[in-house]
Amino acid sequence: MRIVILGTGNLATQLGMALHAQHAEIIQVYGRTGTSASDLANLLGCTSTTSKQEIITDADLYILAVSEAAIPEILTDAPFRDRLIVHTSGSISIDVLTSFSNNYGVFYPLQTLSKQKAVDFSAVPICIEANSVENLEKLNKLAKTISDQVFEINSTQRRQLHLAAVFVCNFVNHLYAIGEKLLQEQHLNFNLLKPLIAETAQKAMLFSPPDVQTGPAIRDNQKIMELHLQMLEQHPAWQKLYELISKDITRFHQV
Amino acid sequence: MRIVILGTGNLATQLGMALHAQHAEIIQVYGRTGTSASDLANLLGCTSTTSKQEIITDADLYILAVSEAAIPEILTDAPFRDRLIVHTSGSISIDVLTSFSNNYGVFYPLQTLSKQKAVDFSAVPICIEANSVENLEKLNKLAKTISDQVFEINSTQRRQLHLAAVFVCNFVNHLYAIGEKLLQEQHLNFNLLKPLIAETAQKAMLFSPPDVQTGPAIRDNQKIMELHLQMLEQHPAWQKLYELISKDITRFHQV
Repeated sequence: MRIVILGTGNLATQLGMALHAQHAEIIQVYGRTGTSASDLANLLGCTSTTSKQEIITDADLYILAVSEAAIPEILTDAPFRDRLIVHTSGSISIDVLTSFSNNYGVFYPLQTLSKQKAVDFSAVPICIEANSVENLEKLNKLAKTISDQVFEINSTQRRQLHLAAVFVCNFVNHLYAIGEKLLQEQHLNFNLLKPLIAETAQKAMLFSPPDVQTGPAIRDNQKIMELHLQMLEQHPAWQKLYELISKDITRFHQV
Repeated sequence: MRIVILGTGNLATQLGMALHAQHAEIIQVYGRTGTSASDLANLLGCTSTTSKQEIITDADLYILAVSEAAIPEILTDAPFRDRLIVHTSGSISIDVLTSFSNNYGVFYPLQTLSKQKAVDFSAVPICIEANSVENLEKLNKLAKTISDQVFEINSTQRRQLHLAAVFVCNFVNHLYAIGEKLLQEQHLNFNLLKPLIAETAQKAMLFSPPDVQTGPAIRDNQKIMELHLQMLEQHPAWQKLYELISKDITRFHQV
């Protein structure tokens, strides 16, 4: 399977490297900006181009690893036609590709990718969807070369999965950031919180989260919650957040 | 060091068992309700009582492992006097003990404890504070028998630590609960989110959280955020939460 990767960001890089490590035949990287396409192409041992018209037209698979907004922009006037094209986005329907090819699908790795840290793809769930059984099977085969967890997920499910991921990953990370800031104010090292962060995540591996909820809100400890709100007086946004989440914990466990 | 444990909840149980495993001499458990004191005493191989007046009066250390509100209630008219008494609470000042003894302190394990899961205390930070150098040294010695991470933390720092812990543990777990519920609505298994939860926590071990923030809010992807808010229309509380956290991510990274 000869693959062209369209995009040069975190996802393009980490997915490209995971595929490359499993001996996938990546033949070209396309990127709109100067050096990033050739940088990634060097990592993947393939050619690169910054000109849409120079994209190789007879590859077996085109992987769109770009932001949602850039998808139609890239596909409009692209020289390849009716080849298998997949996007890699959680919240975009498969239908966005209908007008650009008769063969299309989605290849969505559910993971948080940053430049700072390489991800072990073997444990990353890959959610696939395609316009035909044949194309689904092609994506399934490819996904299984890099991950043990491959799932057929439709567009409605996938966008819900992405929404849930924002809560358990992006929002959770922001709460970590708030915790770090609060500690800094008292000259305390963030390391102090790390065993707690690890244990909280570890518990989610083993139990349904509501069953292991702890803290002042679930105990309805008004005195502690009032103290915490007072302590947050210099941080009105976090005070509001504290109040809202605490109330939601109470509500959630009353239903 | 002969120890009496006052309390029979999660903390009393898990701390008692960690001390017992390191051959601490626990001589009695006091609990207000019938069987829970004798149940815990059985685990710890010691006596128990439900009568305050029968608490052994010459122990070397009394560990108050009860809710904040119960501390004065238990200590008022307690028969032991001027023995070393510690409480185990994050948000309560050491001063709450002043009127009950000339020897007092705090022994606060910073961890989330539930009945469902035993905790490896060796990695749990134990925050100690005492009214004298001698008492601090006694607590330090005891804490080091069960944990590699023992810190002297004053009451102001400790309550800030507890506040931060609410954000990175209790609130984080609630976000996990929301994620699980959102998946259930689309008949998706919570297992799908577990690699993401684990990776997000793992990143916090290695990086400062703001440096690895990902997601629609930090990318200022208005289209995706609007879609997510629409999708949450049946959950007005989560819609509000989504909006508030997203705005705070933007604000945090602009400062």
